[in-house]
Amino acid sequence: MADLCILDRLAETIEARKSAHSSNSYVAKLLSSGQDKILKKIAEEAAETIMASKDGNTKHLVYEIADLWFHCLVLLAHHELKPEDVLHELERREGISGIKEKLSRKTGQ
Amino acid sequence: MADLCILDRLAETIEARKSAHSSNSYVAKLLSSGQDKILKKIAEEAAETIMASKDGNTKHLVYEIADLWFHCLVLLAHHELKPEDVLHELERREGISGIKEKLSRKTGQ
Amino acid sequence: MADLCILDRLAETIEARKSAHSSNSYVAKLLSSGQDKILKKIAEEAAETIMASKDGNTKHLVYEIADLWFHCLVLLAHHELKPEDVLHELERREGISGIKEKLSRKTGQ
Amino acid sequence: MADLCILDRLAETIEARKSAHSSNSYVAKLLSSGQDKILKKIAEEAAETIMASKDGNTKHLVYEIADLWFHCLVLLAHHELKPEDVLHELERREGISGIKEKLSRKTGQ
Repeated sequence: MADLCILDRLAETIEARKSAHSSNSYVAKLLSSGQDKILKKIAEEAAETIMASKDGNTKHLVYEIADLWFHCLVLLAHHELKPEDVLHELERREGISGIKEKLSRKTGQ
Repeated sequence: MADLCILDRLAETIEARKSAHSSNSYVAKLLSSGQDKILKKIAEEAAETIMASKDGNTKHLVYEIADLWFHCLVLLAHHELKPEDVLHELERREGISGIKEKLSRKTGQ
Repeated sequence: MADLCILDRLAETIEARKSAHSSNSYVAKLLSSGQDKILKKIAEEAAETIMASKDGNTKHLVYEIADLWFHCLVLLAHHELKPEDVLHELERREGISGIKEKLSRKTGQ
Repeated sequence: MADLCILDRLAETIEARKSAHSSNSYVAKLLSSGQDKILKKIAEEAAETIMASKDGNTKHLVYEIADLWFHCLVLLAHHELKPEDVLHELERREGISGIKEKLSRKTGQ
Protein backbone atom coordinates (compact mmCIF):
# COMPACT_ATOMS: atom_id res chain seq x y z
CA MET A 1 0.00 0.00 0.00
CA ALA A 2 1.24 3.39 -1.02
CA ASP A 3 1.46 4.85 2.46
CA LEU A 4 3.83 2.16 3.70
CA CYS A 5 6.76 4.23 2.55
CA ILE A 6 10.02 5.03 4.31
CA LEU A 7 8.25 7.56 6.59
CA ASP A 8 6.17 4.76 8.12
CA ARG A 9 9.17 2.49 8.53
CA LEU A 10 11.08 5.31 10.25
CA ALA A 11 8.09 5.98 12.49
CA GLU A 12 8.10 2.32 13.53
CA THR A 13 11.82 2.52 14.34
CA ILE A 14 11.27 5.69 16.35
CA GLU A 15 8.39 4.02 18.22
CA ALA A 16 10.62 1.03 19.00
CA ARG A 17 13.38 3.29 20.34
CA LYS A 18 10.79 5.12 22.44
CA SER A 19 9.90 2.00 24.39
CA ALA A 20 13.46 0.62 24.49
CA HIS A 21 14.95 3.71 26.21
CA SER A 22 18.20 2.56 24.63
CA SER A 23 20.88 4.89 25.94
CA ASN A 24 23.00 4.78 22.78
CA SER A 25 20.17 5.84 20.48
CA TYR A 26 19.95 9.48 19.39
CA VAL A 27 16.17 9.20 19.05
CA ALA A 28 15.67 7.63 22.48
CA LYS A 29 17.75 10.38 24.08
CA LEU A 30 15.87 13.11 22.19
CA LEU A 31 12.45 11.67 23.09
CA SER A 32 13.37 11.36 26.75
CA SER A 33 14.73 14.92 26.94
CA GLY A 34 11.24 16.23 26.19
CA GLN A 35 9.20 18.32 23.81
CA ASP A 36 11.27 21.54 23.93
CA LYS A 37 14.45 19.79 22.75
CA ILE A 38 12.56 18.31 19.79
CA LEU A 39 11.03 21.70 18.95
CA LYS A 40 14.46 23.37 19.10
CA LYS A 41 15.72 20.79 16.59
CA ILE A 42 12.79 21.56 14.26
CA ALA A 43 13.59 25.30 14.41
CA GLU A 44 17.26 24.53 13.79
CA GLU A 45 16.62 22.23 10.81
CA ALA A 46 14.16 24.73 9.29
CA ALA A 47 16.87 27.40 9.54
CA GLU A 48 19.43 25.07 7.97
CA THR A 49 16.97 24.31 5.17
CA ILE A 50 16.65 28.06 4.52
CA MET A 51 20.44 28.51 4.54
CA ALA A 52 21.11 25.53 2.23
CA SER A 53 18.48 26.87 -0.18
CA LYS A 54 20.07 30.35 -0.17
CA ASP A 55 23.46 28.71 -0.81
CA GLY A 56 21.95 26.93 -3.82
CA ASN A 57 23.53 23.72 -2.50
CA THR A 58 20.95 21.13 -3.54
CA LYS A 59 22.78 18.15 -1.99
CA HIS A 60 22.90 19.98 1.34
CA LEU A 61 19.27 21.08 0.90
CA VAL A 62 18.05 17.48 0.48
CA TYR A 63 20.03 16.55 3.59
CA GLU A 64 18.50 19.37 5.66
CA ILE A 65 14.93 18.67 4.53
CA ALA A 66 15.50 15.01 5.44
CA ASP A 67 16.65 16.20 8.89
CA LEU A 68 13.60 18.46 9.20
CA TRP A 69 11.15 15.70 8.25
CA PHE A 70 12.92 13.21 10.50
CA HIS A 71 12.56 15.50 13.52
CA CYS A 72 8.89 16.01 12.60
CA LEU A 73 8.52 12.22 12.85
CA VAL A 74 10.10 12.34 16.31
CA LEU A 75 7.66 15.13 17.29
CA LEU A 76 4.73 13.08 15.97
CA ALA A 77 5.93 10.09 18.06
CA HIS A 78 6.16 12.37 21.12
CA HIS A 79 2.46 13.19 20.63
CA GLU A 80 1.49 9.55 19.89
CA LEU A 81 0.82 10.51 16.28
CA LYS A 82 1.95 8.85 13.04
CA PRO A 83 3.22 10.10 9.67
CA GLU A 84 -0.01 8.68 8.21
CA ASP A 85 -1.90 11.40 10.08
CA VAL A 86 0.07 14.03 8.16
CA LEU A 87 -0.10 12.13 4.86
CA HIS A 88 -3.88 11.73 5.21
CA GLU A 89 -4.20 15.47 5.86
CA LEU A 90 -2.21 16.07 2.66
CA GLU A 91 -4.45 13.58 0.80
CA ARG A 92 -7.54 15.35 2.10
CA ARG A 93 -6.21 18.63 0.70
CA GLU A 94 -5.29 16.99 -2.60
CA GLY A 95 -8.94 15.95 -2.86
CA ILE A 96 -10.19 19.47 -2.09
CA SER A 97 -7.70 20.97 -4.52
CA GLY A 98 -8.84 18.51 -7.23
CA ILE A 99 -12.48 19.46 -6.66
CA LYS A 100 -11.61 23.16 -6.68
CA GLU A 101 -9.74 22.78 -9.93
CA LYS A 102 -12.66 20.96 -11.57
CA LEU A 103 -15.06 23.65 -10.39
CA SER A 104 -12.80 26.42 -11.61
CA ARG A 105 -12.50 24.72 -15.01
CA LYS A 106 -16.29 24.48 -15.26
CA THR A 107 -16.82 28.10 -14.36
CA GLY A 108 -13.98 29.04 -16.64
CA GLN A 109 -12.05 31.01 -13.99
CA MET B 1 6.05 0.83 -5.29
CA ALA B 2 6.23 2.18 -1.77
CA ASP B 3 7.59 5.59 -2.69
CA LEU B 4 4.63 6.44 -4.92
CA CYS B 5 2.83 7.85 -1.93
CA ILE B 6 0.90 11.11 -1.58
CA LEU B 7 4.16 13.10 -1.46
CA ASP B 8 4.97 12.06 -5.01
CA ARG B 9 1.46 12.77 -6.23
CA LEU B 10 1.60 16.23 -4.65
CA ALA B 11 5.02 16.83 -6.24
CA GLU B 12 3.53 15.97 -9.63
CA THR B 13 0.68 18.43 -9.05
CA ILE B 14 3.14 21.13 -7.98
CA GLU B 15 5.24 20.44 -11.09
CA ALA B 16 2.15 20.74 -13.29
CA ARG B 17 1.21 24.08 -11.69
CA LYS B 18 4.78 25.29 -12.20
CA SER B 19 4.56 24.94 -15.96
CA ALA B 20 0.93 26.06 -16.16
CA HIS B 21 1.56 29.48 -14.52
CA SER B 22 -2.13 29.33 -13.64
CA SER B 23 -2.96 32.61 -11.98
CA ASN B 24 -5.60 31.17 -9.66
CA SER B 25 -3.29 28.54 -8.16
CA TYR B 26 -1.66 29.24 -4.78
CA VAL B 27 1.32 27.05 -5.73
CA ALA B 28 1.85 28.73 -9.11
CA LYS B 29 1.80 32.15 -7.45
CA LEU B 30 4.20 31.06 -4.70
CA LEU B 31 6.63 29.48 -7.19
CA SER B 32 6.62 32.54 -9.39
CA SER B 33 7.18 34.93 -6.46
CA GLY B 34 10.56 33.30 -5.89
CA GLN B 35 12.69 31.47 -3.37
CA ASP B 36 12.47 33.97 -0.47
CA LYS B 37 8.67 33.80 -0.31
CA ILE B 38 8.85 29.98 -0.13
CA LEU B 39 11.53 30.14 2.58
CA LYS B 40 9.45 32.60 4.61
CA LYS B 41 6.55 30.15 4.46
CA ILE B 42 8.82 27.35 5.72
CA ALA B 43 9.94 29.51 8.68
CA GLU B 44 6.31 30.42 9.38
CA GLU B 45 5.04 26.83 9.26
CA ALA B 46 7.94 25.62 11.46
CA ALA B 47 6.96 28.30 14.02
CA GLU B 48 3.30 27.28 13.82
CA THR B 49 4.32 23.63 14.31
CA ILE B 50 6.21 24.68 17.47
CA MET B 51 3.21 26.68 18.74
CA ALA B 52 0.67 23.90 18.03
CA SER B 53 2.93 21.42 19.84
CA LYS B 54 3.23 23.74 22.88
CA ASP B 55 -0.58 24.12 22.85
CA GLY B 56 -0.90 20.33 22.92
CA ASN B 57 -3.41 20.66 20.09
CA THR B 58 -2.71 17.47 18.10
CA LYS B 59 -5.26 18.19 15.36
CA HIS B 60 -3.67 21.59 14.78
CA LEU B 61 -0.20 20.03 14.98
CA VAL B 62 -0.97 17.53 12.21
CA TYR B 63 -2.31 20.41 10.11
CA GLU B 64 0.83 22.53 10.64
CA ILE B 65 3.26 19.65 9.90
CA ALA B 66 1.25 18.99 6.71
CA ASP B 67 1.69 22.68 5.83
CA LEU B 68 5.42 22.49 6.60
CA TRP B 69 5.95 19.38 4.47
CA PHE B 70 3.84 20.81 1.66
CA HIS B 71 5.97 23.96 1.50
CA CYS B 72 9.10 21.77 1.53
CA LEU B 73 7.67 20.08 -1.60
CA VAL B 74 7.27 23.51 -3.19
CA LEU B 75 10.88 24.35 -2.27
CA LEU B 76 12.06 21.06 -3.75
CA ALA B 77 10.16 21.87 -6.97
CA HIS B 78 11.79 25.31 -7.03
CA HIS B 79 15.20 23.57 -7.02
CA GLU B 80 14.11 20.93 -9.60
CA LEU B 81 14.26 18.28 -6.86
CA LYS B 82 11.71 15.63 -5.91
CA PRO B 83 10.38 14.22 -2.62
CA GLU B 84 12.07 10.95 -3.63
CA ASP B 85 15.42 12.69 -3.15
CA VAL B 86 14.52 13.34 0.50
CA LEU B 87 12.96 9.90 0.99
CA HIS B 88 16.06 8.22 -0.47
CA GLU B 89 18.25 10.23 1.91
CA LEU B 90 16.05 8.98 4.78
CA GLU B 91 16.31 5.41 3.43
CA ARG B 92 20.08 5.74 3.24
CA ARG B 93 20.16 6.76 6.89
CA GLU B 94 17.78 3.96 7.84
CA GLY B 95 20.31 1.57 6.27
CA ILE B 96 23.20 3.11 8.17
CA SER B 97 21.20 3.07 11.38
CA GLY B 98 20.32 -0.62 10.78
CA ILE B 99 23.99 -1.49 10.23
CA LYS B 100 24.98 0.47 13.32
CA GLU B 101 22.38 -1.33 15.36
CA LYS B 102 23.57 -4.74 14.13
CA LEU B 103 27.17 -3.82 14.91
CA SER B 104 26.22 -2.52 18.32
CA ARG B 105 24.32 -5.74 19.06
CA LYS B 106 27.34 -7.84 18.01
CA THR B 107 29.73 -5.86 20.15
CA GLY B 108 27.20 -5.90 22.96
CA GLN B 109 27.11 -2.12 23.39
CA MET C 1 20.21 58.14 31.64
CA ALA C 2 21.74 55.69 29.24
CA ASP C 3 18.78 53.33 29.13
CA LEU C 4 16.36 56.00 27.93
CA CYS C 5 17.23 55.17 24.36
CA ILE C 6 14.97 54.65 21.37
CA LEU C 7 13.92 51.19 22.65
CA ASP C 8 12.30 52.77 25.72
CA ARG C 9 10.61 55.46 23.64
CA LEU C 10 9.23 52.81 21.28
CA ALA C 11 8.04 50.76 24.27
CA GLU C 12 6.16 53.82 25.54
CA THR C 13 4.54 54.30 22.14
CA ILE C 14 3.56 50.61 22.01
CA GLU C 15 2.11 50.88 25.53
CA ALA C 16 0.09 53.95 24.49
CA ARG C 17 -1.30 52.12 21.43
CA LYS C 18 -2.18 49.15 23.63
CA SER C 19 -4.55 51.20 25.76
CA ALA C 20 -5.85 53.29 22.85
CA HIS C 21 -7.08 50.29 20.81
CA SER C 22 -6.74 52.61 17.85
CA SER C 23 -8.03 50.70 14.85
CA ASN C 24 -5.64 52.29 12.36
CA SER C 25 -2.49 51.38 14.32
CA TYR C 26 -0.49 48.32 13.22
CA VAL C 27 0.71 47.77 16.81
CA ALA C 28 -2.78 48.03 18.32
CA LYS C 29 -4.09 45.51 15.79
CA LEU C 30 -1.18 43.12 16.42
CA LEU C 31 -1.55 43.34 20.21
CA SER C 32 -5.28 42.73 20.06
CA SER C 33 -4.91 39.73 17.72
CA GLY C 34 -3.02 37.89 20.46
CA GLN C 35 0.24 36.21 21.32
CA ASP C 36 0.41 33.72 18.42
CA LYS C 37 0.29 36.47 15.78
CA ILE C 38 3.17 38.28 17.52
CA LEU C 39 5.18 35.04 17.77
CA LYS C 40 4.61 34.31 14.07
CA LYS C 41 6.00 37.76 13.25
CA ILE C 42 9.10 37.04 15.38
CA ALA C 43 9.68 33.77 13.51
CA GLU C 44 9.17 35.56 10.19
CA GLU C 45 11.54 38.43 11.01
CA ALA C 46 14.20 36.00 12.30
CA ALA C 47 13.95 34.13 8.98
CA GLU C 48 14.21 37.38 7.02
CA THR C 49 17.26 38.36 9.11
CA ILE C 50 18.87 35.02 8.14
CA MET C 51 18.03 35.54 4.46
CA ALA C 52 19.28 39.15 4.36
CA SER C 53 22.53 38.02 6.01
CA LYS C 54 22.99 35.22 3.46
CA ASP C 55 22.33 37.75 0.67
CA GLY C 56 25.09 39.95 2.14
CA ASN C 57 22.65 42.87 1.85
CA THR C 58 23.63 44.96 4.91
CA LYS C 59 21.00 47.64 4.36
CA HIS C 60 18.31 44.98 4.24
CA LEU C 61 19.88 43.21 7.24
CA VAL C 62 19.69 46.35 9.40
CA TYR C 63 16.05 46.73 8.36
CA GLU C 64 15.19 43.12 9.27
CA ILE C 65 16.97 43.23 12.66
CA ALA C 66 15.05 46.47 13.38
CA ASP C 67 11.85 44.59 12.51
CA LEU C 68 12.87 41.66 14.72
CA TRP C 69 13.67 43.89 17.71
CA PHE C 70 10.51 45.91 17.19
CA HIS C 71 8.34 42.79 17.32
CA CYS C 72 10.24 41.71 20.45
CA LEU C 73 9.15 45.04 22.01
CA VAL C 74 5.56 44.23 21.07
CA LEU C 75 5.93 40.76 22.66
CA LEU C 76 7.38 42.34 25.82
CA ALA C 77 4.40 44.73 25.96
CA HIS C 78 2.03 41.77 25.54
CA HIS C 79 3.62 40.25 28.69
CA GLU C 80 3.64 43.59 30.58
CA LEU C 81 7.44 43.64 30.32
CA LYS C 82 9.76 46.45 29.24
CA PRO C 83 12.91 46.66 27.09
CA GLU C 84 14.73 47.63 30.31
CA ASP C 85 14.13 44.08 31.57
CA VAL C 86 16.08 42.74 28.60
CA LEU C 87 18.75 45.46 28.79
CA HIS C 88 19.24 44.78 32.52
CA GLU C 89 19.64 41.07 31.78
CA LEU C 90 22.30 42.01 29.20
CA GLU C 91 23.97 44.31 31.76
CA ARG C 92 23.96 41.52 34.32
CA ARG C 93 25.74 39.27 31.84
CA GLU C 94 28.20 42.02 30.93
CA GLY C 95 29.07 42.16 34.64
CA ILE C 96 29.54 38.39 34.86
CA SER C 97 31.57 38.37 31.67
CA GLY C 98 33.78 41.17 33.05
CA ILE C 99 34.34 39.25 36.27
CA LYS C 100 35.03 36.04 34.35
CA GLU C 101 37.54 37.83 32.17
CA LYS C 102 39.34 39.29 35.19
CA LEU C 103 39.46 35.87 36.84
CA SER C 104 40.71 34.23 33.68
CA ARG C 105 43.43 36.87 33.35
CA LYS C 106 44.53 36.28 36.96
CA THR C 107 44.64 32.54 36.57
CA GLY C 108 46.31 32.95 33.20
CA GLN C 109 43.75 30.83 31.29
CA MET D 1 23.93 60.47 24.90
CA ALA D 2 20.92 58.25 24.85
CA ASP D 3 22.27 55.75 22.37
CA LEU D 4 25.30 54.90 24.50
CA CYS D 5 23.31 52.19 26.21
CA ILE D 6 24.25 48.62 27.09
CA LEU D 7 23.84 47.55 23.43
CA ASP D 8 26.71 49.82 22.39
CA ARG D 9 28.91 48.67 25.26
CA LEU D 10 28.25 45.03 24.34
CA ALA D 11 29.03 45.81 20.70
CA GLU D 12 32.38 47.27 21.79
CA THR D 13 33.15 44.14 23.81
CA ILE D 14 32.20 41.92 20.84
CA GLU D 15 34.42 44.04 18.57
CA ALA D 16 37.32 43.67 21.01
CA ARG D 17 36.88 39.88 21.13
CA LYS D 18 36.76 39.80 17.33
CA SER D 19 40.26 41.20 17.02
CA ALA D 20 41.64 39.34 20.05
CA HIS D 21 40.75 35.83 18.71
CA SER D 22 40.81 34.82 22.37
CA SER D 23 40.30 31.08 22.42
CA ASN D 24 38.39 31.03 25.70
CA SER D 25 35.79 33.57 24.58
CA TYR D 26 32.39 32.31 23.41
CA VAL D 27 32.01 35.34 21.13
CA ALA D 28 35.46 34.97 19.55
CA LYS D 29 34.75 31.30 18.82
CA LEU D 30 31.33 32.05 17.36
CA LEU D 31 32.66 34.88 15.15
CA SER D 32 35.50 32.72 13.85
CA SER D 33 33.20 29.78 13.08
CA GLY D 34 31.41 31.92 10.50
CA GLN D 35 28.07 33.36 9.51
CA ASP D 36 26.05 30.12 9.41
CA LYS D 37 26.79 29.29 13.06
CA ILE D 38 25.63 32.79 14.10
CA LEU D 39 22.47 32.46 11.98
CA LYS D 40 21.70 29.05 13.50
CA LYS D 41 21.93 30.64 16.96
CA ILE D 42 19.50 33.39 15.90
CA ALA D 43 17.00 30.77 14.69
CA GLU D 44 17.46 28.82 17.92
CA GLU D 45 17.00 31.85 20.19
CA ALA D 46 13.93 32.99 18.22
CA ALA D 47 12.44 29.51 18.74
CA GLU D 48 13.27 29.61 22.45
CA THR D 49 11.66 33.06 22.69
CA ILE D 50 8.50 31.59 21.14
CA MET D 51 8.54 28.62 23.54
CA ALA D 52 9.15 30.77 26.65
CA SER D 53 6.28 33.03 25.59
CA LYS D 54 3.93 30.05 25.11
CA ASP D 55 5.00 28.76 28.56
CA GLY D 56 4.06 32.17 30.02
CA ASN D 57 7.41 32.12 31.82
CA THR D 58 8.32 35.83 31.80
CA LYS D 59 11.70 35.38 33.53
CA HIS D 60 12.68 32.83 30.89
CA LEU D 61 11.26 35.04 28.15
CA VAL D 62 13.43 38.02 29.18
CA TYR D 63 16.44 35.68 29.19
CA GLU D 64 15.70 34.34 25.69
CA ILE D 65 15.07 37.79 24.17
CA ALA D 66 18.39 38.91 25.72
CA ASP D 67 20.01 35.88 24.03
CA LEU D 68 18.32 36.73 20.73
CA TRP D 69 19.42 40.40 20.82
CA PHE D 70 22.93 39.42 21.89
CA HIS D 71 23.32 37.10 18.91
CA CYS D 72 21.98 39.87 16.66
CA LEU D 73 24.84 42.04 17.99
CA VAL D 74 27.29 39.27 17.06
CA LEU D 75 25.73 39.10 13.56
CA LEU D 76 26.01 42.89 13.22
CA ALA D 77 29.71 42.66 14.21
CA HIS D 78 30.21 39.91 11.62
CA HIS D 79 28.93 42.35 8.98
CA GLU D 80 30.95 45.31 10.37
CA LEU D 81 27.70 46.94 11.50
CA LYS D 82 26.78 48.46 14.87
CA PRO D 83 23.66 48.41 17.08
CA GLU D 84 23.39 52.15 16.33
CA ASP D 85 22.54 51.23 12.73
CA VAL D 86 19.51 49.28 13.98
CA LEU D 87 18.58 51.91 16.59
CA HIS D 88 18.76 54.67 13.95
CA GLU D 89 16.50 52.62 11.68
CA LEU D 90 14.04 52.34 14.59
CA GLU D 91 14.34 56.10 15.22
CA ARG D 92 13.68 56.78 11.55
CA ARG D 93 10.48 54.74 11.75
CA GLU D 94 9.46 56.45 14.99
CA GLY D 95 9.69 59.73 13.09
CA ILE D 96 7.60 58.40 10.21
CA SER D 97 5.07 56.96 12.62
CA GLY D 98 4.86 60.32 14.43
CA ILE D 99 4.27 62.14 11.12
CA LYS D 100 1.69 59.56 10.06
CA GLU D 101 -0.11 59.96 13.34
CA LYS D 102 -0.20 63.73 12.99
CA LEU D 103 -1.53 63.44 9.45
CA SER D 104 -4.17 60.94 10.46
CA ARG D 105 -5.27 63.23 13.30
CA LYS D 106 -5.58 66.14 10.85
CA THR D 107 -7.63 64.17 8.37
CA GLY D 108 -9.64 62.74 11.23
CA GLN D 109 -9.03 59.09 10.31
